[in-house]
Amino acid sequence: MDDTTKPALHETEATDIPVERRRRTGGRGGDRIRKTNGSKYLNLVNNLSHTQILSPEALDDVHNASLTILEEIGMDIILPEARERMKAAGADVTPGTERVRFDRGLIMDMIASAPSTFTLHARNPLRNVQIGGKNLVFAQVASAPFVADREGGRRAGNQEDFRKLIKLAQSFDVIHMTGGYPVEPIDIHASVRHLDCLSDIVKLTDKAFHCYSLGQQRNLDAIEIARIGRGISMEQMEREPSLYTIINSSSPLRLDGPMLQGIIEMSSRNQVVVVTPFTLAGAMAPVTIAGAVVQQNAEALCGIAFTQMVRKGAPVMYGGFTSNVDMKTGAPAFGTPEYMKAVMAGGQLARRYGLPYRTSNTNASNTLDAQAAYESALSLWAVTQGGGNFVLHSAGWSEGGLTASFEKFILDVDMLQMVAEFLTPLDVSEDALALDAVRDVGPGGHYFGTAHTLARYETAFYSPILSDWRNFETWTEAGRPTTYDHANRVFKEVLNKYERPPLDPAIEEQLDAFVAKRKAEGGVPTDF
Amino acid sequence: MDDTTKPALHETEATDIPVERRRRTGGRGGDRIRKTNGSKYLNLVNNLSHTQILSPEALDDVHNASLTILEEIGMDIILPEARERMKAAGADVTPGTERVRFDRGLIMDMIASAPSTFTLHARNPLRNVQIGGKNLVFAQVASAPFVADREGGRRAGNQEDFRKLIKLAQSFDVIHMTGGYPVEPIDIHASVRHLDCLSDIVKLTDKAFHCYSLGQQRNLDAIEIARIGRGISMEQMEREPSLYTIINSSSPLRLDGPMLQGIIEMSSRNQVVVVTPFTLAGAMAPVTIAGAVVQQNAEALCGIAFTQMVRKGAPVMYGGFTSNVDMKTGAPAFGTPEYMKAVMAGGQLARRYGLPYRTSNTNASNTLDAQAAYESALSLWAVTQGGGNFVLHSAGWSEGGLTASFEKFILDVDMLQMVAEFLTPLDVSEDALALDAVRDVGPGGHYFGTAHTLARYETAFYSPILSDWRNFETWTEAGRPTTYDHANRVFKEVLNKYERPPLDPAIEEQLDAFVAKRKAEGGVPTDF
Repeated sequence: MDDTTKPALHETEATDIPVERRRRTGGRGGDRIRKTNGSKYLNLVNNLSHTQILSPEALDDVHNASLTILEEIGMDIILPEARERMKAAGADVTPGTERVRFDRGLIMDMIASAPSTFTLHARNPLRNVQIGGKNLVFAQVASAPFVADREGGRRAGNQEDFRKLIKLAQSFDVIHMTGGYPVEPIDIHASVRHLDCLSDIVKLTDKAFHCYSLGQQRNLDAIEIARIGRGISMEQMEREPSLYTIINSSSPLRLDGPMLQGIIEMSSRNQVVVVTPFTLAGAMAPVTIAGAVVQQNAEALCGIAFTQMVRKGAPVMYGGFTSNVDMKTGAPAFGTPEYMKAVMAGGQLARRYGLPYRTSNTNASNTLDAQAAYESALSLWAVTQGGGNFVLHSAGWSEGGLTASFEKFILDVDMLQMVAEFLTPLDVSEDALALDAVRDVGPGGHYFGTAHTLARYETAFYSPILSDWRNFETWTEAGRPTTYDHANRVFKEVLNKYERPPLDPAIEEQLDAFVAKRKAEGGVPTDF
Repeated sequence: MDDTTKPALHETEATDIPVERRRRTGGRGGDRIRKTNGSKYLNLVNNLSHTQILSPEALDDVHNASLTILEEIGMDIILPEARERMKAAGADVTPGTERVRFDRGLIMDMIASAPSTFTLHARNPLRNVQIGGKNLVFAQVASAPFVADREGGRRAGNQEDFRKLIKLAQSFDVIHMTGGYPVEPIDIHASVRHLDCLSDIVKLTDKAFHCYSLGQQRNLDAIEIARIGRGISMEQMEREPSLYTIINSSSPLRLDGPMLQGIIEMSSRNQVVVVTPFTLAGAMAPVTIAGAVVQQNAEALCGIAFTQMVRKGAPVMYGGFTSNVDMKTGAPAFGTPEYMKAVMAGGQLARRYGLPYRTSNTNASNTLDAQAAYESALSLWAVTQGGGNFVLHSAGWSEGGLTASFEKFILDVDMLQMVAEFLTPLDVSEDALALDAVRDVGPGGHYFGTAHTLARYETAFYSPILSDWRNFETWTEAGRPTTYDHANRVFKEVLNKYERPPLDPAIEEQLDAFVAKRKAEGGVPTDF
């Protein structure tokens, strides 16, 4: 008899007639919302040993190949001021071109001054996040052009949905930060969008947040909004990083002007920079995962070194975003075995350099089906076992990042909480080993009603948000809801229960005044 | 700009208008079936370092608590012959009762003779599987009372569906073995069911297989069928294990008669025994995961020790099946964070004892939704990182084991192949590091048409069976198929292409004659 043929829990004899022999009881399934569990998920620590995809020799080889790229081929640096700073630091700038080459010693000297751990401050100190080391921080989806829920379908980003997604991020402790605009609200004019969006984020959440590096003035406005939100001086803000920006290289081997400007504005003020090449193997990077990781590493090291040329000791993260494409169509693929390897290899590189490691929770599904779940689960597997410190797009990322999905947000929160529970150390106290309980029950008994069980059953196990564990009959009576159905219901329930976090009225007034003044000034120049 | 705002692959400038800026190309999505990739997935090796959930001290504590249970509390052994054999081996049998206690030295002496690796032989030598060490072997779903596909719904097991599921197992190399009856065909009378089913398995597959331990005669018939299938003598069969059985303890702390008889019949003939306690924390085991693992370990060690009392050196696996229940309903839960921890702890124990480790790919979903995928993916995460050697229920297990699902079978095969690809060592040859390709392309170029890419693109990445990577518009034109839709289509396509593996006509004749003779004798006694 196999374990699946186990009879109802207290039957004893094997039988030839297995039909319905292991009945599951009825009762509630996915029809409940978890509380946010107090502060249980606020400060996650990942004590697992890291999975090594690269041998020490292979890690050396990748490292050396990256430095050879920077030394021999170099990067195109599309901002004169950045090239001047690099030249001053000792880089080899080819006159009359944008090409800059970096001696490997220069790169290693520069990254040596980057801190391996730091605190990113939120306006609510309980929401401060520790970046690097064994810490694990989740930020929600960022930068999707579309937004979707089942009833409303897929639609262009807008302020109403933007605000809802921000509210969802506030509603779960396991979402430690926002990650930029979860969806791009194109109904707000681009010249003032950053003012409205960041003001909303400060008011609707009390978590740390991100600013886009799309020109100097946007960076400066964001820094001022973060400062006002925390109610601190610029001097304190410089001591306490309170804002972060994602810097993508324009792969292969190029850093664009706004990105370089972003590093200058943010690093010079000791704010957090996350350097993330976007190296899809077979498209903007070599078709081999090792080659794509080599190029990722070269580009990341270049950007990270530049942060230290701007300001020694400025907080910076090593970002990895290497995945593959579908070679038959060029479509990006995520949550693949190749993605897993790239994530784990990136972690080894980041740790070699003593840098915090930024990763992502990815998938390419167009809906909330099994694919969305397995690609995300494989991503989280790689992130967790590979030692990711900061996971952007943790919740809500759908369709390869093109769509922020309300239902996917809830699915991801549930999976993130499961990861967090998995990372909670196993209790191996004498009480947990339960020898006395085994003595009490003895052979052939059961544990449902024992004192040991009764004292623990309410909190013994993680109660998922979505998993429907009802038996088939009860589930059928309930209309056979899928995970998609449960997630659709839950996100609306969570939004209905949303409450704004407290904000000092004086701060809110100051924030509104700043936004009004900057809007009166016209915001920032745009292309249209 | 965040990486999700990356424009179409060759655009260069950041923009404020992110809508549709990262278009995905059209083309094929899930509309294809992978070939079985030759022998790529036949012999899987897991070179990952194992994740240690238990510290060395905690591992000692669990081990010692288990041995204390066997020494002080003991197990109920519901077969006189087994008690006699245990007594002869030195165990303490309480006269007039079924209780047997085991000195810890006796247990350790016994398990020391169990082999840490062995070969399980199939009738096709290419399908032989290596058990233990770093080897990873997948067997399909076993023992579900129900079977389901979308059109046919959920129905009682029957011979037609049984055969289809066996054919599916034969169709994919990543399914290394069958795992018992994937579904229980209740339209075959129980007295002869094992004869028809095992005969079908020998004819429709060329892989190693399982027999249920439900009485001596069934074991003997199965051994004879396995012998006939391989066309070998009983002496050779005893040298070359060619059949396996799952032995579940009747937790807590009891081994039932047919299970003990199964160990006697199988181990005495050097066939493979998999001892798997079914220890749901909070039901048949303590509510703490550590306590449930302690009890699992005690029960497993008892069964394993008994195999060695029957025959020193007989092949045996350490089985773990500890999960939790929904404490509000008693419903079993699978693929949970608690399950992950139990799987990894079990792996540490099995390796401590130098025994191959049997695990499972579990989930509790009633359909093929996101839950089915994330619970399975979390199971496979734990199995892989926890060092499982043999994964029963690898493909098709649905609804907590109550239903064998045709669509879930395909989903699982895709996930198993992704695990296999993930475990393939990353190529870090000079060619793979791709420095020359990076030199050729340089900053700002692209890799689509380069020689390095063209030489590799067809085999560079895993091509999933189900993942639909088409862009939203193309996917919408195709009717927005979900993973469930693709899996439903694929399982039927695979069945249509099924071909019986070659079988020597003389062997088939001998097999038919044996089954006919045994049927004429009435098969085995049943309860009805």
